[in-house]
Amino acid sequence: MKELNIGLIGYGFMGRAHSNAFRKVGNFFDLEYQPVLKAVCGRDVEKVKGFAAKWGYESFETDWRRLLAREDIDLVDIACPNDMHKEIAIAAAKAGKMILCEKPLSMNGPEGVKMVQAVEKAGVPNMVWYNYRRVPAVALAKQLIDEGRLGRIFHYRAKFLQDWTISEDLPQGGAGLWRLDVKVAGSGVTGDLLAHCIDTAIWLNGSFETVTAMTETFIKRRKHNLTGKVEKVGIDDACAFLARFQNGSLATFESTRYARGHKALNTFEINGEHASIAWDLHDLHRLQYFDHRDEGRVRGWRSIHVTDGDQPYMGKWWVPGLQIGYEHSFVHQVADFLEGVAKGKPASPTFRDALETQYVCDAVLKSARTHRWEKVARAIK
Amino acid sequence: MKELNIGLIGYGFMGRAHSNAFRKVGNFFDLEYQPVLKAVCGRDVEKVKGFAAKWGYESFETDWRRLLAREDIDLVDIACPNDMHKEIAIAAAKAGKMILCEKPLSMNGPEGVKMVQAVEKAGVPNMVWYNYRRVPAVALAKQLIDEGRLGRIFHYRAKFLQDWTISEDLPQGGAGLWRLDVKVAGSGVTGDLLAHCIDTAIWLNGSFETVTAMTETFIKRRKHNLTGKVEKVGIDDACAFLARFQNGSLATFESTRYARGHKALNTFEINGEHASIAWDLHDLHRLQYFDHRDEGRVRGWRSIHVTDGDQPYMGKWWVPGLQIGYEHSFVHQVADFLEGVAKGKPASPTFRDALETQYVCDAVLKSARTHRWEKVARAIK
Amino acid sequence: MKELNIGLIGYGFMGRAHSNAFRKVGNFFDLEYQPVLKAVCGRDVEKVKGFAAKWGYESFETDWRRLLAREDIDLVDIACPNDMHKEIAIAAAKAGKMILCEKPLSMNGPEGVKMVQAVEKAGVPNMVWYNYRRVPAVALAKQLIDEGRLGRIFHYRAKFLQDWTISEDLPQGGAGLWRLDVKVAGSGVTGDLLAHCIDTAIWLNGSFETVTAMTETFIKRRKHNLTGKVEKVGIDDACAFLARFQNGSLATFESTRYARGHKALNTFEINGEHASIAWDLHDLHRLQYFDHRDEGRVRGWRSIHVTDGDQPYMGKWWVPGLQIGYEHSFVHQVADFLEGVAKGKPASPTFRDALETQYVCDAVLKSARTHRWEKVARAIK
Amino acid sequence: MKELNIGLIGYGFMGRAHSNAFRKVGNFFDLEYQPVLKAVCGRDVEKVKGFAAKWGYESFETDWRRLLAREDIDLVDIACPNDMHKEIAIAAAKAGKMILCEKPLSMNGPEGVKMVQAVEKAGVPNMVWYNYRRVPAVALAKQLIDEGRLGRIFHYRAKFLQDWTISEDLPQGGAGLWRLDVKVAGSGVTGDLLAHCIDTAIWLNGSFETVTAMTETFIKRRKHNLTGKVEKVGIDDACAFLARFQNGSLATFESTRYARGHKALNTFEINGEHASIAWDLHDLHRLQYFDHRDEGRVRGWRSIHVTDGDQPYMGKWWVPGLQIGYEHSFVHQVADFLEGVAKGKPASPTFRDALETQYVCDAVLKSARTHRWEKVARAIK
Repeated sequence: MKELNIGLIGYGFMGRAHSNAFRKVGNFFDLEYQPVLKAVCGRDVEKVKGFAAKWGYESFETDWRRLLAREDIDLVDIACPNDMHKEIAIAAAKAGKMILCEKPLSMNGPEGVKMVQAVEKAGVPNMVWYNYRRVPAVALAKQLIDEGRLGRIFHYRAKFLQDWTISEDLPQGGAGLWRLDVKVAGSGVTGDLLAHCIDTAIWLNGSFETVTAMTETFIKRRKHNLTGKVEKVGIDDACAFLARFQNGSLATFESTRYARGHKALNTFEINGEHASIAWDLHDLHRLQYFDHRDEGRVRGWRSIHVTDGDQPYMGKWWVPGLQIGYEHSFVHQVADFLEGVAKGKPASPTFRDALETQYVCDAVLKSARTHRWEKVARAIK
Repeated sequence: MKELNIGLIGYGFMGRAHSNAFRKVGNFFDLEYQPVLKAVCGRDVEKVKGFAAKWGYESFETDWRRLLAREDIDLVDIACPNDMHKEIAIAAAKAGKMILCEKPLSMNGPEGVKMVQAVEKAGVPNMVWYNYRRVPAVALAKQLIDEGRLGRIFHYRAKFLQDWTISEDLPQGGAGLWRLDVKVAGSGVTGDLLAHCIDTAIWLNGSFETVTAMTETFIKRRKHNLTGKVEKVGIDDACAFLARFQNGSLATFESTRYARGHKALNTFEINGEHASIAWDLHDLHRLQYFDHRDEGRVRGWRSIHVTDGDQPYMGKWWVPGLQIGYEHSFVHQVADFLEGVAKGKPASPTFRDALETQYVCDAVLKSARTHRWEKVARAIK
Repeated sequence: MKELNIGLIGYGFMGRAHSNAFRKVGNFFDLEYQPVLKAVCGRDVEKVKGFAAKWGYESFETDWRRLLAREDIDLVDIACPNDMHKEIAIAAAKAGKMILCEKPLSMNGPEGVKMVQAVEKAGVPNMVWYNYRRVPAVALAKQLIDEGRLGRIFHYRAKFLQDWTISEDLPQGGAGLWRLDVKVAGSGVTGDLLAHCIDTAIWLNGSFETVTAMTETFIKRRKHNLTGKVEKVGIDDACAFLARFQNGSLATFESTRYARGHKALNTFEINGEHASIAWDLHDLHRLQYFDHRDEGRVRGWRSIHVTDGDQPYMGKWWVPGLQIGYEHSFVHQVADFLEGVAKGKPASPTFRDALETQYVCDAVLKSARTHRWEKVARAIK
Repeated sequence: MKELNIGLIGYGFMGRAHSNAFRKVGNFFDLEYQPVLKAVCGRDVEKVKGFAAKWGYESFETDWRRLLAREDIDLVDIACPNDMHKEIAIAAAKAGKMILCEKPLSMNGPEGVKMVQAVEKAGVPNMVWYNYRRVPAVALAKQLIDEGRLGRIFHYRAKFLQDWTISEDLPQGGAGLWRLDVKVAGSGVTGDLLAHCIDTAIWLNGSFETVTAMTETFIKRRKHNLTGKVEKVGIDDACAFLARFQNGSLATFESTRYARGHKALNTFEINGEHASIAWDLHDLHRLQYFDHRDEGRVRGWRSIHVTDGDQPYMGKWWVPGLQIGYEHSFVHQVADFLEGVAKGKPASPTFRDALETQYVCDAVLKSARTHRWEKVARAIK
């Protein structure tokens, strides 16, 4: 078994999710590579020290450039806010490190292009943490689609609904709230939530053709945690768009942080000629499946409890009937990445794959400004 | 089209449900016989007059013996409290009338035997209003079982849960509350609610062999509406029993009026070697079906939305997706009865069929007293 | 009790639904007016005769002008295809009849304007059969919104999904299939299905401001039943649009007949500052309600089983726990209409109310052509 | 932070679940004690070596007596089949080790008594792995009951349904199938599955008074993996029983491995005067709650998505909306145990607590033989 030394940048929510994945993957999967928690990097020395102790990192750094300079680091995992992804990723590529990057890849498409060029020039393994691809029920949906069970696709619809920013008293910016600060996040729900929906949609339904969108900022001004002043809110609180895919299907997408009663309701449904599939994150261990080829009298939506050994990833865990949760999607992604490294075959989504999502986000945000249908840019060569 | 003159006895909840069925059946089913609302009978002259006007009965009576004596009545429908079923039914049989009788057939098995003997001696068409057999989803369950799709049956479980008698202030007896008066009702939930579960179980799973039961009266004394005094409560508020069926399957049954949150949750589930079925009255237009022969990866409980033309009775109503409700089960039962009359082939459950349920209730109530397993009596010859 | 003589035009699906409502309403509601099934009108003499016999109409006509000329007709109920609504309604208004008209009101806004002007000039009671307003769960939603329980509204989303036209072999036009013939229907899912969603949305959420839409015709050519030739399909098979309401909320709407697994999935969800509400037609007797003011630890979506006497309309039917179905929404609408006539206060939606839906449909269809956001026309004076 | 050295006996399904819990607990909980994976013990040297490598145990043993003799072991975790619990536990107590023991505590009550006496005499911390008490939704149910929200309890019902032994070809005995071998397991579903239901019931609803039960062995003979011969099956394939609790409530319990469509459907429902609660393992992150004190019109079962920081244990994991799974119940149990050790206050269920479940199982199995109601033995002094 080969050791693969991890250097993690960022110790927030995602830093924990990634660390948990690195620590667990070897207990459940048989892999050639074993991640070793070599170092974690963060600006606050007390916090990064505490994090290292809690998670078993051997060392810590407070300057990411120092981390990249270390020869004992094989892989750099970027788990810090969006506005730092580009600079770190390009530097890490130059340093010849493997790179994992939190989603969204970048603040926008042009930034993403540079990142893709950097990793491809350096020839380093790279992947973006669009973790929902590795929820077993979602992976099962992918299998069914790839097997052609749905036939011609007519409709795709996706939503990501939350309700945590409805209070006017919630400030923006700083630790834990950088997602509300447009300078750090780049956008609001579009880059944070719809990016997940878009990545899943591309994976399941192929490329987008055109979009028309609307966005809204319901609460226009909030106190900024870093300046202490009430400032204009620059992010989109909500975004909805219509789309047409290259396969001829029609789609609707919607995301908001103002949908009372929904904490993290990430959903998709896809309707094909022969069958339909639906999923949602609030019951992530289930897949809804309707097959018109079932005998008429007993046809119905099947609630598939995805916990069996012949369903994606589930053979690695417990026994039928016993569900896994959110964090396992990260474990699966690490497993697939490490397997890809061993086989010399990259696991998706690579930076290049993730750039496509960035282009869709750019077209969506542009359409919200122009009030017109916008064409989604094609991938760079 | 032949007219069939109805004489209804009782104008309460069931009097309305039956009247609605008689009035509607001809609009939706193609039948040789058309019910005519000839007369309704009740003790309170003002109320019976008002009921006749509201439902379009041509006349009314205040003495059921006068109704039975009328030559223009072809069918007597007994929709009054349990303690009067026997006397009226036997007299109606002697008068040569067709008879429909509300469930339960009788206060107990011995009474039921006399009623069966009377109708069979008279040779008159007869049926008991165990209406849930005619809910389309339940009728579909019956089809699937009869087709052998479930294979060997291992388990049957049924419940009928309500919550309307939890308040200590609720009195017993009199109009609307005779179900709490043991002298009128015969028993509590056993005859009122479990009788439904038992009838469905016999229909779907065959005859019972043995039972062991417990009953409880949670509120021991209530004001009696007829005497004005606080009196001992004689009914069972709750009853649960274990059973073994002749087909070797094991069963559990439970009913109560003290299950907060359940208004009329009548449910059954049946587990066979190959497939399972579940249903409940709160979503009566759906059948849950699990078939182990489905391919493993996409196997799941199917939620069958029973509204299609190829599903029992549904071709008579609207279009797929549009549900019917509780009252339609009575319409279906009238349709089946009238079709049976036309063909000379009785529709189930006949008085004889319903007697079997009475025997099960008797064994259940006896077991609750003896604290032993009791054998269910076999049908009379 | 006063008799109100009904003259029905059309004996298809809606002719049955309306007739059932007229026949039943008096059995369950206490009303000053009692509908009398005086005459039904249709072009095929054998069919109209059969329909009259089945439903108990006293007479029949084969020319709607003759029906309108009859003095014994108080109310004309227009239940024939969309392309005839205008001419009949205007003539009926001139004849001084009360008018009920199937939805959508008209083929388009300009037609609708003339109809509104005609009934208002004549001063006759008028109503359009947007029946879903009278589903008890939907009426309960309306109460909750009117009581201000949701607070400021952020989002509205609605869908109406079907799957009955996926086969290429299905022809267009003629009896039962006129909804696929653009010349008769005016549009596809927009006028047929989205019109329902739009009417409900206006009722619950107020007026629309702007929309942007896309439509698609998946199967471009179908055999036409009347010509026998394969002809271009003129209707929209699917339509999705984004909208902004005058109250500042954002909305998404979608309808299609190509969503496998959904027979008639008419749904809406509305997210407010304090509470959210969701409903769907496949389980029409339930309302989903989330109230953020509930204590945090035990907060959750409530599945309200709308069958209690204190919930809209339900006191008229059975007992708690026993559900009603689709057809009852028509009974309720007749009851409200008759009550409105008695009180001299019209029940909604009047022709004028329904015109607003027509304007939204027009803007949606226009936007699908122009690929731009379109403003919804304001009501006529 | 103090290290606490773990010695695990058994490396099957439960060995993995416990190991995962020991490894993760420190990453998510702030504890005084940190488990150290010191040694794992199993009979097969290759397998135990592999397990040690995969999970990071520092050493291994093939004889449990040697493990107990090691001074560097603080805590012995018994995760081997039921027939070895007693001997190991008593020896471990004598050796002064803390003891965790897989459920059920023992083969029967008398064995359990000796184990309780041993640990109490030795004064060592001890706990039994009834892990479902630590599912957050179940812990929330416990809070609500303890706060008196349900009022007087009328009904308790529980089931644990599986379907994995329906095939006649499945053998009994040996690795992975010892649960079917009565000599090793002690009983079938009673000790394996109902023991879970009983433990939860005692925790939530207090002590049992009396029971009446039936058991069945559907497949009478199976090949035995250890002898290679077809032998009589000694376990109960299914068991159902009625019970009365000391608080006056009535209960039904059922378990089987012959319920098609249910993989591990562990459920309970409890009906009180004011409120009801229901839960099932297939959607373990949800609690169903009905409170009659909610306003009538909007009263309904609440589906509580237990993922918020103010709900039991959930503040330690991710963010609202993101669910955890089965394995987390073990992490929580270790956390509670370690906290108990630090505070000198034992976490439940101790061996003494678990003995009560054993007594219920004994009464159930006895009743199934005697066909009588049996009284549940009171705890030893």
